[in-house]
Amino acid sequence: MSKHILSVDQFKDEDIFDLFNRTDDMLLNGSSYSSLRGKIVGMLFLEPSTRTMSSFAAAVKRLGGDTIGWSGTSHMSMAKGESLEDTIKTMSQYVDIIVLRHSEKGASARAAAVSDVPIINAGDGDGEHPTQALLDLYTIADERNTDKNRHILDQPTTPLTHRDIDGLKILFFGDNKYARTVNSLKKLLGFFEGISMMEENLYFEPESFTGENGGEPIVKQEWDKENFIINLSQADVVYITRLQKERWPTGWHCFSNSASANHYAKYKHINKYIAFNASDLKWLKKDAIILHPLPRTDEMNPEVDSDKRCKIWRQAKNGMFLRMALLKSLLS
Amino acid sequence: MSKHILSVDQFKDEDIFDLFNRTDDMLLNGSSYSSLRGKIVGMLFLEPSTRTMSSFAAAVKRLGGDTIGWSGTSHMSMAKGESLEDTIKTMSQYVDIIVLRHSEKGASARAAAVSDVPIINAGDGDGEHPTQALLDLYTIADERNTDKNRHILDQPTTPLTHRDIDGLKILFFGDNKYARTVNSLKKLLGFFEGISMMEENLYFEPESFTGENGGEPIVKQEWDKENFIINLSQADVVYITRLQKERWPTGWHCFSNSASANHYAKYKHINKYIAFNASDLKWLKKDAIILHPLPRTDEMNPEVDSDKRCKIWRQAKNGMFLRMALLKSLLS
Amino acid sequence: MSKHILSVDQFKDEDIFDLFNRTDDMLLNGSSYSSLRGKIVGMLFLEPSTRTMSSFAAAVKRLGGDTIGWSGTSHMSMAKGESLEDTIKTMSQYVDIIVLRHSEKGASARAAAVSDVPIINAGDGDGEHPTQALLDLYTIADERNTDKNRHILDQPTTPLTHRDIDGLKILFFGDNKYARTVNSLKKLLGFFEGISMMEENLYFEPESFTGENGGEPIVKQEWDKENFIINLSQADVVYITRLQKERWPTGWHCFSNSASANHYAKYKHINKYIAFNASDLKWLKKDAIILHPLPRTDEMNPEVDSDKRCKIWRQAKNGMFLRMALLKSLLS
Repeated sequence: MSKHILSVDQFKDEDIFDLFNRTDDMLLNGSSYSSLRGKIVGMLFLEPSTRTMSSFAAAVKRLGGDTIGWSGTSHMSMAKGESLEDTIKTMSQYVDIIVLRHSEKGASARAAAVSDVPIINAGDGDGEHPTQALLDLYTIADERNTDKNRHILDQPTTPLTHRDIDGLKILFFGDNKYARTVNSLKKLLGFFEGISMMEENLYFEPESFTGENGGEPIVKQEWDKENFIINLSQADVVYITRLQKERWPTGWHCFSNSASANHYAKYKHINKYIAFNASDLKWLKKDAIILHPLPRTDEMNPEVDSDKRCKIWRQAKNGMFLRMALLKSLLS
Repeated sequence: MSKHILSVDQFKDEDIFDLFNRTDDMLLNGSSYSSLRGKIVGMLFLEPSTRTMSSFAAAVKRLGGDTIGWSGTSHMSMAKGESLEDTIKTMSQYVDIIVLRHSEKGASARAAAVSDVPIINAGDGDGEHPTQALLDLYTIADERNTDKNRHILDQPTTPLTHRDIDGLKILFFGDNKYARTVNSLKKLLGFFEGISMMEENLYFEPESFTGENGGEPIVKQEWDKENFIINLSQADVVYITRLQKERWPTGWHCFSNSASANHYAKYKHINKYIAFNASDLKWLKKDAIILHPLPRTDEMNPEVDSDKRCKIWRQAKNGMFLRMALLKSLLS
Repeated sequence: MSKHILSVDQFKDEDIFDLFNRTDDMLLNGSSYSSLRGKIVGMLFLEPSTRTMSSFAAAVKRLGGDTIGWSGTSHMSMAKGESLEDTIKTMSQYVDIIVLRHSEKGASARAAAVSDVPIINAGDGDGEHPTQALLDLYTIADERNTDKNRHILDQPTTPLTHRDIDGLKILFFGDNKYARTVNSLKKLLGFFEGISMMEENLYFEPESFTGENGGEPIVKQEWDKENFIINLSQADVVYITRLQKERWPTGWHCFSNSASANHYAKYKHINKYIAFNASDLKWLKKDAIILHPLPRTDEMNPEVDSDKRCKIWRQAKNGMFLRMALLKSLLS
């Protein structure tokens, strides 16, 4: 593994499964380690985030390390006009590693170019989010592994291998254009054999909100129900994502724009019927699983959570353990 | 004690005094404990707070634990449309316990319904704030206890009992309608015998700001000075609260509304004369005490602080020790 | 040293060099200390800051301590109308020391007057920023010390003395009127002998933006290029600061005012040519050094960083070690 974690491209097969074995170890024995004692992790979340930030912070602290940093940009040196490069260069004087979330694609590469310490890309615009893709893949492999006692016994587990991923049929359901987690996971799956990727794309068209249509929104659905049911019945994994409104181009409905937010409020009922609902579960294979990187809004009904194939909370928890494994291997 | 700490209703007598004994122990020996080593507390302060947040955070860290979380909602997953339930369910994958402050009554019960870890209600709207009520009661019992060396000697203390609370005469002075600390403390005092509760209510009427009265505010004072002096001279405890402007119904003067804030700025001189001032101290019994959950604005003059009957800072400090005791008993 | 750290005025010669020796020790052995184990530092950054906040937080955590606190004022008790004095008095019930950044001159003295624990002034308006001045002076003395192995060998170093500072020629380049770091450093240098202080002042005149000049800004430059070159060629230290737009009087261009920010955006090209550029380096003495308290905007070109005389990142790192030394001596 290289010094920085910027993209899934830099991971080779053996890196992936080594990391997965270390993640297994964290699940089984993590609470007994103090591998980050005396280490300080700089957490720079310059774009809104809570999940990834909380997951990394918990990972650091469960290993006995500590964090400094901040969330948002409004009260910061950056508000005084400081460049990202200067912010990173300065922070790298104080800490042992930096976890960076940024709204611009490529920001983590710019950071890595000047930093004196390793950079972990925790999401850069509609670019990549490598640790999310890795935890998604870990969850997939973990759930497909045939040894169902892997995590229950506190002893050497059946290691995850190619066998647990090859041949996977995955259905991406949601905003597959702007969700960086989808981008990164697709790249990562590209390393494996016999992977089938299917898509159901949900989005609004920009015309919907420009008045060209007399003010009435057009909901584009790149699906027909029959095809969706066929896809669903074949999928090993259904990977659901929300509409990434904050990443839509200017002129589209943008969540951070209050006028557009009103538009959204007005028309949000329209995509209710395209949400993934409990009634869709009957088409799903018995051993399929449902994943979602979270947060969720209208695209997945919480009534689905009670189905045992829904693994979204386990997926979140796995993320913390995988990040523990990654931090431990980078810092010790 | 139940798993979650949502309301003072759930505390029985023996729970209260057990917690008070543990609080004594924290005051005497707390710094020698590392009971929360390796534990992570999720601090979700979705409504503005600093005092309760700081008090809990200090409590966690004095016991060797650590915190993750955030304050406010603007930069968060919740701004992307996530439900409280999903936020709690996710956070509960990462942490050992969650401390929740929220602007809506009942939010902590909603959280407890989905959380995988215990929830501590750190204030929900104009609902409850159980740890504040408990620390208020601890301070009252502590100050009324006749053994004045309780805290000075580092050895077994005289435990607090019913005797230190029964028969209490307490005067609530301030916004008794919207201060949740008053709600919770009154409930808690309801478990004891011979309690006299008196009230002096300070508030603005909504008509004041709707123009129905020609633009002139009416300050409603449910008091007459003579009655106030009689109450004051009988009280063992004067419990002062500020005007909870942020909890007033829509249409009332609301602190978060800038137009209304101007109104408040314009008319705030009007309640100057109803503040509790040093000149009121002469009516107070020699062994009475003055408490205030803080923050304070105009309702209590800082000149009162230098009187030895003013225990507001000790009250704040007690809060940290009581929260240490509570966290230790929930987590170890 | 007094209990509080409010101003460089309170430091005597022996205090300064004692602190510098302790800073040397932190550089060499700091990571092996746990001097702040069990200590909690209250970080109240009521004015935007990231650098100083991060530096102090890293210092605390590298010594095994922990922090509580917050940044900004919008979501806080202070937004409910609480006074600085009450905020400090309360926080001092929970923590062992308070680090305070505030937008008003004299705020740290007000805090010290009521606090139950020591206050460290981390910058108050255009007043002082004593730890910044001390770290600047440390960096100057460290770089001028003739024993170039001071930091390389993990053994007793050549202690810094008056000899490393006396006779210094320093050129202040930037906003010397409003930069509090310049104020504090000048005061501190006043304790030494044979110091030459030169100035190049960069600022906008208020008339520039009041329309008195037909809307055209006047850039006042108190310099002529020839004089600048002479100063530069004599300086041992060039101390660069950015235009402190957030401290300009009302009526001047103010960064926090969006109308003025537009003005700034419109006219910022004007001070491009007064920035310190790589082409200026040829006038600089071979053993001179360039310092900058950061953050930087247009007044110093990043192309300067690659010159070995640029010590701005080392200066930042020294700051963390000096703050470790200060905290250790105050708290243990």
